[in-house]
Amino acid sequence: MKSSKLLITLFASVSLGTSAKADQLKLDSFTSSAQLVAALPESAWRQLSPENTIVMTLPEGEVVIELASKFAPNHVENIRTLVSEKYFDGTSVIRSQDNYVAQWGDTTDVDTNNPNAKPKPLGSAVEKLEVEFFEPLTSIPFTMIESKDAYADLVGFSQGLPAASDGKKAWLSHCYGMVGVSRGTESDSGNGSGLYAITGHAPRHLDLNVTLVGKVWLGMEHLSSLPRGKGPLGFYLEPSKYVPISSVSFLPKGKIIKVMRTDTQEFKRFVELRTTRNEEWFIEPTGSIELCNIWVPIKVV
Amino acid sequence: MKSSKLLITLFASVSLGTSAKADQLKLDSFTSSAQLVAALPESAWRQLSPENTIVMTLPEGEVVIELASKFAPNHVENIRTLVSEKYFDGTSVIRSQDNYVAQWGDTTDVDTNNPNAKPKPLGSAVEKLEVEFFEPLTSIPFTMIESKDAYADLVGFSQGLPAASDGKKAWLSHCYGMVGVSRGTESDSGNGSGLYAITGHAPRHLDLNVTLVGKVWLGMEHLSSLPRGKGPLGFYLEPSKYVPISSVSFLPKGKIIKVMRTDTQEFKRFVELRTTRNEEWFIEPTGSIELCNIWVPIKVV
Repeated sequence: MKSSKLLITLFASVSLGTSAKADQLKLDSFTSSAQLVAALPESAWRQLSPENTIVMTLPEGEVVIELASKFAPNHVENIRTLVSEKYFDGTSVIRSQDNYVAQWGDTTDVDTNNPNAKPKPLGSAVEKLEVEFFEPLTSIPFTMIESKDAYADLVGFSQGLPAASDGKKAWLSHCYGMVGVSRGTESDSGNGSGLYAITGHAPRHLDLNVTLVGKVWLGMEHLSSLPRGKGPLGFYLEPSKYVPISSVSFLPKGKIIKVMRTDTQEFKRFVELRTTRNEEWFIEPTGSIELCNIWVPIKVV
Repeated sequence: MKSSKLLITLFASVSLGTSAKADQLKLDSFTSSAQLVAALPESAWRQLSPENTIVMTLPEGEVVIELASKFAPNHVENIRTLVSEKYFDGTSVIRSQDNYVAQWGDTTDVDTNNPNAKPKPLGSAVEKLEVEFFEPLTSIPFTMIESKDAYADLVGFSQGLPAASDGKKAWLSHCYGMVGVSRGTESDSGNGSGLYAITGHAPRHLDLNVTLVGKVWLGMEHLSSLPRGKGPLGFYLEPSKYVPISSVSFLPKGKIIKVMRTDTQEFKRFVELRTTRNEEWFIEPTGSIELCNIWVPIKVV
């Protein structure tokens, strides 16, 4: 695999946010990503903030979602309002399409058996929002990684979230676990009251076509292992199949969840180690990596 | 996205197996892949053969797997022997790791609670096999597609299965639904009595490191929606969690399952339409596509 010099240069110039050169020497001594993660200093982690993180409670457990306030400030604000006013409590997961998405929100979106059903009132949240598909690259923290990508000229991470760029715009990418705003054919027909998470192979063709608003950091299995819906697009055909959401609330202040920072020398080394896979099990390490195959480490303290 | 002229040329020279030029003109008139698939002539489909297709029965339904006899003839022959002798009947799915794999086979592989458990006898099947990680490109039917790929110089399809190449070797790729031979640290420690299917984002770094033996064409949801195991690597910790496999047998002769041929002009047009996504819902079609985001159409007659 030939390496792209452009990307190497960009990585070097963009990602040197932290760590002195002395650290880098030590980083070279690690030969597996697991060793490295176990030894990371506290400065290589950041804590999920209660005001920017929501917890959705499903029958099988909790789903912890960090909101992407840099990329979709208006949608995130709307979702915060909905969460504050307990809009999501009593809503449901209404769709589970294999190798694609799980989608949740108000059941009247899909309850065609009951045409008189009234949508759940949005309270103080707004019904119409302009799309937030991308931001100028210059306004977004962005750590490039070296990878030949089918969908974008440049790929990397923005504060832990997988992202892509054409050198001018930057946008979030539809990797596994990313959360987006459900919409109909009209681009602005979503407002955050209906959301979905990617539960299969990254459908990157959705990038730049939907407003992404966050990422599931914990509890993805409670969405990804749901029974698949038998209707078109994986919608559940009967209300009895809907998966109840008992509540969506902000992360409790006492709950300490830390994710690895993606703007550090430690993260750069982490990606290198995940690329080379110089581990006993591997016979022919690839020497390359794809954006959505990089899993940012997380720990619950 | 810039297109690679090399790949376009290869596609044109390799894939023109069928269809006259007159057909191609008609193909241009389709503007969505769904329209095209609905109108495909019988010559654009191939039927899964009973001797090369196995059906695994799980509690929630059947999983239909086509075997990759071109890429892994010895492993496939061993699996055929195991199926003929009903080895898999009464085995279990023993592992479900989120966004990765479901794995099945003999429970003594993992039943550490019972160190005296004896492995299930393999009957006429062999215990040791040389790995079958790749074949010479010249010996494999291969239809290139145009895609910038993080892991390989060339990607495409070989008789319906996603594959990659460096121009000399060709190998199957770990896309969603692909089935491989479980192994330990020794490269040849698998023989087909333990198998796995990819249930998450394609772990393409496994390419060339494991013998892939087939692809799930139907019933993936019965593997992908299984509860995740709570042990390391997603293994189920207790035998009570194992998911019973009542039988694995060859596809009954009366069961007609057809998949779209991947060596035709129709398939080339199908990939083009999936790439451009010139459909009403899309606001910014990407103009590019990744190997593992191409789903080969299937129909049960």
